[in-house]
Amino acid sequence: MSDTTWTRHHILSLADFTTPEYDIVLQTAASFQEVLSRRTKKVPTLQGQVVANLFFESSTRTRSSFELAAKRLSADTLNFASATSSMTKGETILDTAKTYLAMGTDIMVIRHREAGVPHAIAQEMDRLGVRVSVLNAGDGQHEHPSQALLDLFTICTLLDPDFPRVELLKDKKIAIVGDILHSRVARSNIWSFTASGAHVHLAAPPTLLPKLFADYSKDKPGKLFLHWELEPALQDADFVMTLRLQKERMTSHLLPSLREYHQMFGLTHSMLQLCKPYVKVLHPGPVNRGVEISSELMDDSEFSLIQAQVTSGVAVRMALLYLIGSGKA
Amino acid sequence: MSDTTWTRHHILSLADFTTPEYDIVLQTAASFQEVLSRRTKKVPTLQGQVVANLFFESSTRTRSSFELAAKRLSADTLNFASATSSMTKGETILDTAKTYLAMGTDIMVIRHREAGVPHAIAQEMDRLGVRVSVLNAGDGQHEHPSQALLDLFTICTLLDPDFPRVELLKDKKIAIVGDILHSRVARSNIWSFTASGAHVHLAAPPTLLPKLFADYSKDKPGKLFLHWELEPALQDADFVMTLRLQKERMTSHLLPSLREYHQMFGLTHSMLQLCKPYVKVLHPGPVNRGVEISSELMDDSEFSLIQAQVTSGVAVRMALLYLIGSGKA
Amino acid sequence: MSDTTWTRHHILSLADFTTPEYDIVLQTAASFQEVLSRRTKKVPTLQGQVVANLFFESSTRTRSSFELAAKRLSADTLNFASATSSMTKGETILDTAKTYLAMGTDIMVIRHREAGVPHAIAQEMDRLGVRVSVLNAGDGQHEHPSQALLDLFTICTLLDPDFPRVELLKDKKIAIVGDILHSRVARSNIWSFTASGAHVHLAAPPTLLPKLFADYSKDKPGKLFLHWELEPALQDADFVMTLRLQKERMTSHLLPSLREYHQMFGLTHSMLQLCKPYVKVLHPGPVNRGVEISSELMDDSEFSLIQAQVTSGVAVRMALLYLIGSGKA
Repeated sequence: MSDTTWTRHHILSLADFTTPEYDIVLQTAASFQEVLSRRTKKVPTLQGQVVANLFFESSTRTRSSFELAAKRLSADTLNFASATSSMTKGETILDTAKTYLAMGTDIMVIRHREAGVPHAIAQEMDRLGVRVSVLNAGDGQHEHPSQALLDLFTICTLLDPDFPRVELLKDKKIAIVGDILHSRVARSNIWSFTASGAHVHLAAPPTLLPKLFADYSKDKPGKLFLHWELEPALQDADFVMTLRLQKERMTSHLLPSLREYHQMFGLTHSMLQLCKPYVKVLHPGPVNRGVEISSELMDDSEFSLIQAQVTSGVAVRMALLYLIGSGKA
Repeated sequence: MSDTTWTRHHILSLADFTTPEYDIVLQTAASFQEVLSRRTKKVPTLQGQVVANLFFESSTRTRSSFELAAKRLSADTLNFASATSSMTKGETILDTAKTYLAMGTDIMVIRHREAGVPHAIAQEMDRLGVRVSVLNAGDGQHEHPSQALLDLFTICTLLDPDFPRVELLKDKKIAIVGDILHSRVARSNIWSFTASGAHVHLAAPPTLLPKLFADYSKDKPGKLFLHWELEPALQDADFVMTLRLQKERMTSHLLPSLREYHQMFGLTHSMLQLCKPYVKVLHPGPVNRGVEISSELMDDSEFSLIQAQVTSGVAVRMALLYLIGSGKA
Repeated sequence: MSDTTWTRHHILSLADFTTPEYDIVLQTAASFQEVLSRRTKKVPTLQGQVVANLFFESSTRTRSSFELAAKRLSADTLNFASATSSMTKGETILDTAKTYLAMGTDIMVIRHREAGVPHAIAQEMDRLGVRVSVLNAGDGQHEHPSQALLDLFTICTLLDPDFPRVELLKDKKIAIVGDILHSRVARSNIWSFTASGAHVHLAAPPTLLPKLFADYSKDKPGKLFLHWELEPALQDADFVMTLRLQKERMTSHLLPSLREYHQMFGLTHSMLQLCKPYVKVLHPGPVNRGVEISSELMDDSEFSLIQAQVTSGVAVRMALLYLIGSGKA
């Protein structure tokens, strides 16, 4: 695998990811995708290493994906969920992380409802001079890099299964639709898609897409576009990513009703007619059927990449754990 | 192992199990029981395969039994419990199953409080044309096939440790006592015991044994009998299975009191005098001591097979995972 | 490893631990500490054995430490937490233990909020004549032997990294400060430290250190001392162990306020000036920063052994599982 140039120790954000780094992740994930198609799906790469999933916010899907990725690399896994932890006893988050460090953890996969927690832990680990790596599995409304990387891998693999690479996205039009304001997935996707040379079109009601998002596009002229209606974003799009709408948004008066939201921003077969003929739809899951996407479209394997995203997730997470974990032991 | 004729892909219900199928399960479980007595209790059979325990209803005992069975076959396991899952975020159960499918799950072990959920998931998997197997670990008040198979194995192994087979049960009298109405275990047991040629006698208060249960016996003349008193069921019985009484049944006015229930249907040493001299007692667990069975009888190893059932559970579940899982990778 | 004389089957209490037993634990742990520094941190010692963590009281830190220790010995692990268990269905604790026994558990690691539960389970296992071992992972306010053994290992390893042994503690002065009344850790530490020939000085407000603790010192003349002020305990101390203060103690009127407690019994750099120059500070964790110890002191690696304790925990628990588990299979 072409990881000779990989130097990154933590994976916290895609804001400063370089094109070679994206390509290494894509090609390493492609290798693991191939491993997963073999009879024996395990490799001994991380044998004896410990991957601790520290999930201060619950998530079955992401935690299972990381756990499976770690097990297929033959690592030992520890699961921590805050509900059953001593967080209730008043220990700080940094203390919890240091406890797992002291136990011998090699990689910490961290999810927290507040932005910046994985960074703070990584910073503390570096200050201590230890070799543990931190992987951000979602922090508040900030970033969710492994999700954006699996989205990137899903798309690039579709465009060239044998040699996925970011240049394949050059000048593709990608629409991101929905609750962008609250989405860490969208923020990470904006970094990776614009870095790949794609044209990224955001579409949402004004309450879910404030003007400040235009700031993202300042140093990306001609790459990031904001729309308060769905149609211009879908027009000739190659890919459409729709985001989960948290039902809590209704009670906080950011939206009138789920039904109205679906009428204006819900993805359906008929809306897709605005897009390129071979358009594909992505969603980070879990899906609110009939809200951000129609049930029929979600299940239509001609258009939907949603299952492929989940499958990509295991390969991409194996790649990330491999890249930051190998050479450690 | 004599699995040359095994063709069943999912294990959802015992309603259509054939005698050869029962015998294959019994003999495969006997082989694994032998493995479990060795110094090294693990076999590499399912190495690299993923067994996902999707428990939408909590159960430590059954989940641990399946988890241990999977680990002793060298499979990787993923545990999903609905309390900590995105079910709270509104994803459908089929979507959850498809997510675990997309991650690379080979066998899904599913428990749900509603009857039919494992069937629905299996049907969807077949519709999708994928090779994943579904194992029903208890669905509502419908079936609990692995429990009934371990009961069958426990009894047949007692009758012939070297060669357990269903014909050993021919013309044995088996009493099933207790809350039959709400018991998925009883329903699965009725299928396996009557298919084995045993005479099955059900005993419970009328509220817990409605007449409709006679329907089960229509195509089993002379094999299934209903009693609203305990004594005729116990008379000359070879085996007595007593069922857990959910305490909630009291509040829903199906029963007068626990004490009265114990007096009428509780199993005790003195009641056992009605049975054959070598009668054995089974219970699917967990036991309400002093309600459906006296504490003394439960702990009397001369009569009680309750611990043997738990031990059989691991061997039988290894057999089931092996039979539906091998040949997959 | 020098385990030729090890005969203890369960580890429930340190009250009757002998000097040779302490030394065997220390030296076995030292061997595993060495294993943990290797490239491959796993040994096949307990392959095929099952370690069940039965935690009737939640504890992420201790459970993770035992789980990792078991995995590094290549054992299979089962985790049981009462919140998701059938305890809510009325099964007794002994019945739960017997279920895990029947499944094939080799070692049960048990935590319970009531004193004596691990002993009761061990007694029942012995009565049944089975070979399963029980390890007390904390029972009520009674004992927490693995914690005290890791404290002992941490201190002895500091004094002689190559050959940790109890005689190194002879005539050392060790202060134990804080909520001694409610601390199972303190009780276990008193046994191990006094058995090692150290002078143990307890310091706490009278409500948290009743006179009855003097009973511990009756057969240990000149080894155990009680103080209702911090200063005499710290004077010339070689090691200071401070205990977690449960905030519930305030509401039950055992203490005036956290702030006042910190002023009187909180450990700080300036208080440490009373001690020997090379004094070290221990804490069983999790720490209430600014209550029983100042945040600055906790993070000062010149004085604090807190991280070393966590690391020692994995090696010591590997040693304990190895000593009671080997020779079993």
